[in-house]
Amino acid sequence: MEWKYKVPHILFGGDYNPEQWSEEVWKEDVRLMKQAGVNIVTLGVFSWALLQPGPDRYDFNWMDRIIDLLWKHGIYVNLATPTASPPAWMAVRYPEMLPMDENGVRYSHGSRQHYCPNSRVYREYSERLVRRLAEHYKDHPALAMWHVHNEYGCHISRCFCPNCEAAFRKWLRQRYGHIDVLNERWGTAFWGQTYYDWDEIPLPRNTPTYANPALQLDYARFMSDSLLACYLAERRILKQITPDVPVTTNLMGFFKPLDYFAWAEHMDLVSWDSYPEPTAGVPILAAMSHDLMRSLKKGQPFILMEQTPSQVNWRPQNPLKRPGIMRLWSYQTLAHGSDGILFFQWRASRAGAEKFHGAMVPHAGEKTRVYREVAQLGAELKRLDEVLGSRIIAEVAIAFDWSNWWALELDSKPSRDIRYLDELLRYYRPLFERNIAVDFVPPTADLSRYKLVLAPSLYMLTEDAAANLAAFVRRGGYLLTTFFSGIVDENDRVYLGGYPALLKDVLGIWVEEFDPFLPGQRVTCRRTVVSPKQSAIVPERFTADLWADIIHLEGAQVLAEFAEDFYAGYPAITVHRYGRGQAVYVGTRPEDPVIAGLLKALTETAGVKPVLEVPSGVEATCRRTQAGRSYWFLLNHTEQTQRISLPRAHGVYRNLLTNEVVTDELVLAPRDVAVLRTETAE
Amino acid sequence: MEWKYKVPHILFGGDYNPEQWSEEVWKEDVRLMKQAGVNIVTLGVFSWALLQPGPDRYDFNWMDRIIDLLWKHGIYVNLATPTASPPAWMAVRYPEMLPMDENGVRYSHGSRQHYCPNSRVYREYSERLVRRLAEHYKDHPALAMWHVHNEYGCHISRCFCPNCEAAFRKWLRQRYGHIDVLNERWGTAFWGQTYYDWDEIPLPRNTPTYANPALQLDYARFMSDSLLACYLAERRILKQITPDVPVTTNLMGFFKPLDYFAWAEHMDLVSWDSYPEPTAGVPILAAMSHDLMRSLKKGQPFILMEQTPSQVNWRPQNPLKRPGIMRLWSYQTLAHGSDGILFFQWRASRAGAEKFHGAMVPHAGEKTRVYREVAQLGAELKRLDEVLGSRIIAEVAIAFDWSNWWALELDSKPSRDIRYLDELLRYYRPLFERNIAVDFVPPTADLSRYKLVLAPSLYMLTEDAAANLAAFVRRGGYLLTTFFSGIVDENDRVYLGGYPALLKDVLGIWVEEFDPFLPGQRVTCRRTVVSPKQSAIVPERFTADLWADIIHLEGAQVLAEFAEDFYAGYPAITVHRYGRGQAVYVGTRPEDPVIAGLLKALTETAGVKPVLEVPSGVEATCRRTQAGRSYWFLLNHTEQTQRISLPRAHGVYRNLLTNEVVTDELVLAPRDVAVLRTETAE
Amino acid sequence: MEWKYKVPHILFGGDYNPEQWSEEVWKEDVRLMKQAGVNIVTLGVFSWALLQPGPDRYDFNWMDRIIDLLWKHGIYVNLATPTASPPAWMAVRYPEMLPMDENGVRYSHGSRQHYCPNSRVYREYSERLVRRLAEHYKDHPALAMWHVHNEYGCHISRCFCPNCEAAFRKWLRQRYGHIDVLNERWGTAFWGQTYYDWDEIPLPRNTPTYANPALQLDYARFMSDSLLACYLAERRILKQITPDVPVTTNLMGFFKPLDYFAWAEHMDLVSWDSYPEPTAGVPILAAMSHDLMRSLKKGQPFILMEQTPSQVNWRPQNPLKRPGIMRLWSYQTLAHGSDGILFFQWRASRAGAEKFHGAMVPHAGEKTRVYREVAQLGAELKRLDEVLGSRIIAEVAIAFDWSNWWALELDSKPSRDIRYLDELLRYYRPLFERNIAVDFVPPTADLSRYKLVLAPSLYMLTEDAAANLAAFVRRGGYLLTTFFSGIVDENDRVYLGGYPALLKDVLGIWVEEFDPFLPGQRVTCRRTVVSPKQSAIVPERFTADLWADIIHLEGAQVLAEFAEDFYAGYPAITVHRYGRGQAVYVGTRPEDPVIAGLLKALTETAGVKPVLEVPSGVEATCRRTQAGRSYWFLLNHTEQTQRISLPRAHGVYRNLLTNEVVTDELVLAPRDVAVLRTETAE
Repeated sequence: MEWKYKVPHILFGGDYNPEQWSEEVWKEDVRLMKQAGVNIVTLGVFSWALLQPGPDRYDFNWMDRIIDLLWKHGIYVNLATPTASPPAWMAVRYPEMLPMDENGVRYSHGSRQHYCPNSRVYREYSERLVRRLAEHYKDHPALAMWHVHNEYGCHISRCFCPNCEAAFRKWLRQRYGHIDVLNERWGTAFWGQTYYDWDEIPLPRNTPTYANPALQLDYARFMSDSLLACYLAERRILKQITPDVPVTTNLMGFFKPLDYFAWAEHMDLVSWDSYPEPTAGVPILAAMSHDLMRSLKKGQPFILMEQTPSQVNWRPQNPLKRPGIMRLWSYQTLAHGSDGILFFQWRASRAGAEKFHGAMVPHAGEKTRVYREVAQLGAELKRLDEVLGSRIIAEVAIAFDWSNWWALELDSKPSRDIRYLDELLRYYRPLFERNIAVDFVPPTADLSRYKLVLAPSLYMLTEDAAANLAAFVRRGGYLLTTFFSGIVDENDRVYLGGYPALLKDVLGIWVEEFDPFLPGQRVTCRRTVVSPKQSAIVPERFTADLWADIIHLEGAQVLAEFAEDFYAGYPAITVHRYGRGQAVYVGTRPEDPVIAGLLKALTETAGVKPVLEVPSGVEATCRRTQAGRSYWFLLNHTEQTQRISLPRAHGVYRNLLTNEVVTDELVLAPRDVAVLRTETAE
Repeated sequence: MEWKYKVPHILFGGDYNPEQWSEEVWKEDVRLMKQAGVNIVTLGVFSWALLQPGPDRYDFNWMDRIIDLLWKHGIYVNLATPTASPPAWMAVRYPEMLPMDENGVRYSHGSRQHYCPNSRVYREYSERLVRRLAEHYKDHPALAMWHVHNEYGCHISRCFCPNCEAAFRKWLRQRYGHIDVLNERWGTAFWGQTYYDWDEIPLPRNTPTYANPALQLDYARFMSDSLLACYLAERRILKQITPDVPVTTNLMGFFKPLDYFAWAEHMDLVSWDSYPEPTAGVPILAAMSHDLMRSLKKGQPFILMEQTPSQVNWRPQNPLKRPGIMRLWSYQTLAHGSDGILFFQWRASRAGAEKFHGAMVPHAGEKTRVYREVAQLGAELKRLDEVLGSRIIAEVAIAFDWSNWWALELDSKPSRDIRYLDELLRYYRPLFERNIAVDFVPPTADLSRYKLVLAPSLYMLTEDAAANLAAFVRRGGYLLTTFFSGIVDENDRVYLGGYPALLKDVLGIWVEEFDPFLPGQRVTCRRTVVSPKQSAIVPERFTADLWADIIHLEGAQVLAEFAEDFYAGYPAITVHRYGRGQAVYVGTRPEDPVIAGLLKALTETAGVKPVLEVPSGVEATCRRTQAGRSYWFLLNHTEQTQRISLPRAHGVYRNLLTNEVVTDELVLAPRDVAVLRTETAE
Repeated sequence: MEWKYKVPHILFGGDYNPEQWSEEVWKEDVRLMKQAGVNIVTLGVFSWALLQPGPDRYDFNWMDRIIDLLWKHGIYVNLATPTASPPAWMAVRYPEMLPMDENGVRYSHGSRQHYCPNSRVYREYSERLVRRLAEHYKDHPALAMWHVHNEYGCHISRCFCPNCEAAFRKWLRQRYGHIDVLNERWGTAFWGQTYYDWDEIPLPRNTPTYANPALQLDYARFMSDSLLACYLAERRILKQITPDVPVTTNLMGFFKPLDYFAWAEHMDLVSWDSYPEPTAGVPILAAMSHDLMRSLKKGQPFILMEQTPSQVNWRPQNPLKRPGIMRLWSYQTLAHGSDGILFFQWRASRAGAEKFHGAMVPHAGEKTRVYREVAQLGAELKRLDEVLGSRIIAEVAIAFDWSNWWALELDSKPSRDIRYLDELLRYYRPLFERNIAVDFVPPTADLSRYKLVLAPSLYMLTEDAAANLAAFVRRGGYLLTTFFSGIVDENDRVYLGGYPALLKDVLGIWVEEFDPFLPGQRVTCRRTVVSPKQSAIVPERFTADLWADIIHLEGAQVLAEFAEDFYAGYPAITVHRYGRGQAVYVGTRPEDPVIAGLLKALTETAGVKPVLEVPSGVEATCRRTQAGRSYWFLLNHTEQTQRISLPRAHGVYRNLLTNEVVTDELVLAPRDVAVLRTETAE
């Protein structure tokens, strides 16, 4: 089911916690919300203890009053199930519902997220409450969306309690059927770990040294599934009672513990919380995360469920977003496919662990820079309703896989320094900087809509995925993959016979061994001139770090070779024609400009073009409607005024934010934004 | 009650542990003590296991013998209650008396301080032993003082056992009366932490993320109170049996876990243990700590209960005090108000965890540099008996508050880099370097004797304290406070409506928001010329780090403003006339010389003068008797000979250490000291 | 008993884990082994779970088949007792057999080494299995050696469970007899730790601060003994059933937790696992470790039981051994007294925690650099059978003592920066670089065969050891010792009356106090010219770090004195004639070249000569047979060709590796090796 817009606007609002305030303040809140253009608030995220004062007592009165008040002023409610923070009485009565760390120590209540996902007590109480809540509010006109739970797994994504151990064994039995299969797949003959009974299998607790990697990997899968099961149980009830109200939960971008591809199948729309470091320059990781979030449901618009208008309070130091930054970055979310912008939170708390977290209404009230910026944004967004539902079309995909992330970063590897996100960012950045749209897809996804697929450090590669990538190239696609890819199967077992066994044909090489580098170590590489054209792809000399593969050619051509050490003269970067496509292999980690050059050549060869040619530091994206309308988002991330030449091909443009017509050139002030609509449909 | 001197001398001696030695050695000890001028020893600090071999057996024989021997040679005894190290048999029989860490793991016996302050078993055994000890020695003429316990909380200042949990709930009930009051004060509506019963309240154990800050804060108060209760129970017994013998316990200077202002009310005299890093130059933190210790009982002389003559053994590296340093720093304690100098310990142990800790008699015996320096000091101190009881008179106070320390350094703050002691030191240092005496006072103290009060980073400010500071300024006082002051009430709840809400009138400003800096980040500030006079207060340009407030003026004048970032042109340092006084606000952390300049101007305006004008590196203080005698302490912390001009106003001086008369100029060798008495009473 | 060679060759092979592979692969394995010259494999190290599927079920069938197959091809078996990795079923049935950490948390099964050495369950099951295994294979002709367990203590060398606590108390009772003796020896009077009953004694768990050092020390001894008891129990059974089969266990060089001197008495031959960092240059620590391993059984040849042909997988980054390095370092083991070279492991695993650990047959199979290098080495070694049993003769010994290691690195010391291995390496390195053979001996060993004994930082010195060293010097030996030596007895109790009390006569000095340095701190020293000869020993000026002793002369001469700080002019390095010998004391830590110069002078005076004069970077050793044959090992550790002049005195040489005759000069290519035999017996 696709998300239907009950609220016919770009969503604008934030988390609202009226239970922290007197009803006097509620009235003031509603006045300020209207003034700021708020059309929806997220309510009840942490209200369990108030909604259910004891095992058999419920009290929805105060919530009735606030929802009615909001609706009276036309403000919709994104109603949360408050299951992320169970009441104190539950923890005290049923300590077995508390999660346990790997040393067998129960976590304590007194903050939040103190629940074991496999606790029957927790699950039963949660489901009962969700049912009550849904029954109670199912007919309220303000109810626009369900916000299940809050940031699943954000503090506690792994539990090591006996409940989980039993559930893990059950999960394994379902996965493997017979214990001999598990032994074979996990390679338990190593270190004498053979299991004769499911009940002999431990959780990966505090072992004397490395626990079995396949066990660790399955435990990661199991924990993602366990939290997903919590979500599904709530969703099932909500869909039963309010089938038409869309259900979401707020995700967290590239969040390692949860396989969001699996989650997104069960979400009516994706929403997520974005907290980029506010003084670290252009938020490329945020952009990449928006692209992932958009990709989860194959391009369907998502919602930014949380951001801070100013600062957070959980970094070691928490600088402010400078004036204009919150607005600029809010537009970035729209530019990458979002249909809503919400904040945490509406009004800054007086007490508790987040009182120094920024809010739409700061401690000092409405006469503040922060509230003014919020209200300005709220006013502007009203001009963008027509953008709702339009989409980003990407021709480049990055193959991304949570199982690979888990497996790649397990212990006992050749190098601890390969970090999956780092490797992804190195290949995403040059595309971002050239304004080329990118999707993130599982390696087994349908790749037919893409011209170029990147698969950096795809260590774990199933046979299906390998076949999928091979077919993609064979049919004319361009593929790039890098060192330490295609090494193991889904159980972390090495494919024998020369790496990457399943891709040797596609890549036209095989790797004999690899040499991980010490910190600071670099190797010089040099271009291998194959043709005049290729001579432009990589510089004559460059350096690389982290890793060197010892590569043997089996048909590929060499773009660059190592110029040092005992593998001097061995290939470092290769390219291979395979079927109607080409496959590039990068057997080391070159400096960023080398990667940028390589990707420039690849995209050009593959026929992938930037959205727009714009000055450096300006971000450009394009959203398109099914009807063929284009919306051009232009964001000036620099501190200088930028002049952007607009292609005549699209005729004239209208800047929706200023309602001005723009023809050849757009002038953007520092940190300013434009949303251009082509005045004639293409 | 004020401390009466049973020993009519500057106390001189140390911890004495005869139980580690044969009685042969005891005789040698007494000979060496006499030779070194020792007049008191601290006895029995770790003797519990020997004094009480089992639950119902006591043996005071060996202690009788050693006390008699000491007294035979005229040496007084500072008798310890040995309750800091319970016997092994107790830990084994009653494991519930062991403290517990935040993961629920019991600490083990086998070192020391293995007790839970809320353990009934521990408390009963302690009190029974103390009663026996007091009864046994109450009439011994050697008994000069009670030394309760040892360094309360030095290793274990927090316990998380079930005893403590129950006691904490009781403590909270007494503090808040009704659970609704607690919920309101703690802001438990945040993150759904509402409590419906006292028994639902946890200790701040291993929560998944930040525990409620108000809970954490109250737990800190509770643990300080719990240890105080142990002390009070022992003191009550001692005062009952020996009402005339003064009772103390050895404190530890700026020791965060214990609110010594509350403790000092129940101590007949303050004593403390001082262990400055021996090669770090002029011991300013030690001086500041002496001033705090002196301030605890409003200026009453204190005792230095422990220092090392040479080195310690608990730092990563433990260099020696260079020759002369022990003497110099011993005089610093007198110079700041001490009436006694004791060491840990008399004779270096052969075995155990402190055998490499320095002692008055080293492993190599009396023919050593260390023993010689000890004996020289002992001889000199005999010339200073007349100094006993004289006092330091300070016109400057620093508002200091343990609750603020705890609250300011809790988690979930805008910046983890604000360390209270650092901020205090930055404002103390320039005063120390100009030989201006400083007291430390609670923010609610009577401030009428001070001309200038400094309140750096006074984040937590009760309404009473705010009113007290306001009244102080109104009546003509000078107040300086700095960024992140006056933010929260005693339950860590933010005062709304612009910071620092309760001091806006006094300061003539309000702060809209704050921008914490990243490590290494600095901001340039520039002087704002208001008047020719003020132009001298701060330099034309300077830099600051850590923090910037966004300040709005409401009557204050600007001394300096930010010159960078989006708050360029906003005030950085302001001054405001309020009533008959003035209030300075420093909204960032300027370089040290800027603070020094600011304080110089402030002290001059406020009419505060240095004790004496002396060369840099020379420390000067003055102690005065009630009869009007002045004793000038002059300490040369440099490696050069220093010439000090003495004011004629006081007539001629006598250097008590040399018995020489000094007129215009005093010449001090490197590391040398003089104690000058004005020959004519002022 | 001395090790008898059932296999009349340099042992060559590796750990073989056929249970990880199908029987198809076994056949391929045997073919590749023969091709590579393998003559022995270590079998069954981790086979417990397969050999014993349940408490009462055993299955040796698969092992029968593989042993028969190996033997059919003439490959011997080094049969392991698989007791380092108990089956999962045991851990689940008897959780009390799992070890416990110092917080009382049981370790989990799921990796390896999850057993408590004092667990009765573990011990009984182990012994039963070992008996079965020995009975089953006692007559198999392939059985050449027993490999007990695997790397005792490598992950878990300390257990804190109740079993261990009870065993510790029993061990103490046996050691001390009466509790009063223990109290006296441990100095429990300190901090009130007196014990009245053995059951009051704790393990050194999580104490609030430093546990009693003597307790910690005895616990270290106890744990070494506990693991030794496991070994002895297995050995006893093996020797009972197969008295003629030699028994070993793979040691780990300078492995702190186990006192290998005590272990080696119960090993028929010493074997060990060597994993030098592959890119850190000349492996001096490996050389030193080989020397220690050889010394454990007074010069008897040892076996290199494990090394990697390429890389490991447990460092943060795991670079490859460059081509030729594996061969070069393999010869280094022979050069230092080994009679065998084995690898971990034969075939790289597909799964499990060591799949990225190098192996003789890599994932890519036999057509690889690694396999080729292995096979080349196997072929070469066949030419060296005659070297078997020949020995290194050393004239220099380094006094080394595990108890001293444990005591010296306990907490509560003057400096945490004294690391015993560092200090040993500083004095070993110059001897290594001059190709002077060195033995490692306990300080109480018979020293009569040595001319020079070095005893760096011999903090703990028993009376027997002191007498032994004194007698050695008195009879004409040369002794060198350094700062912080001779400080405590075997219970860590200080010898009083000036350090090092027991060696003052020998050294002709006494030390009054010591000054540990801060990190980065250095002190300048200067030569004190005593005689023209001595003027050459140390440079005119040099610096030292870490530590300065304050030394008083009592007969010694000063070689160098401090030139700075308050001990300027005090001795830094002294030499003293005592009896017919001389004793040097180094009261600080001079720069390496100073130590090298000092040792050069000392060896020359003592009449100790290098094995051969060779260019820098070339290592030379000599093994001699009882019949008087000499084998010269020459290893070129440099990247340049080296020319080595051979002394005429030995006539001509034959390079066994090339079978060429060499006369005056040997030319060695980079990383190349020669093994020269003197063609005429000396």
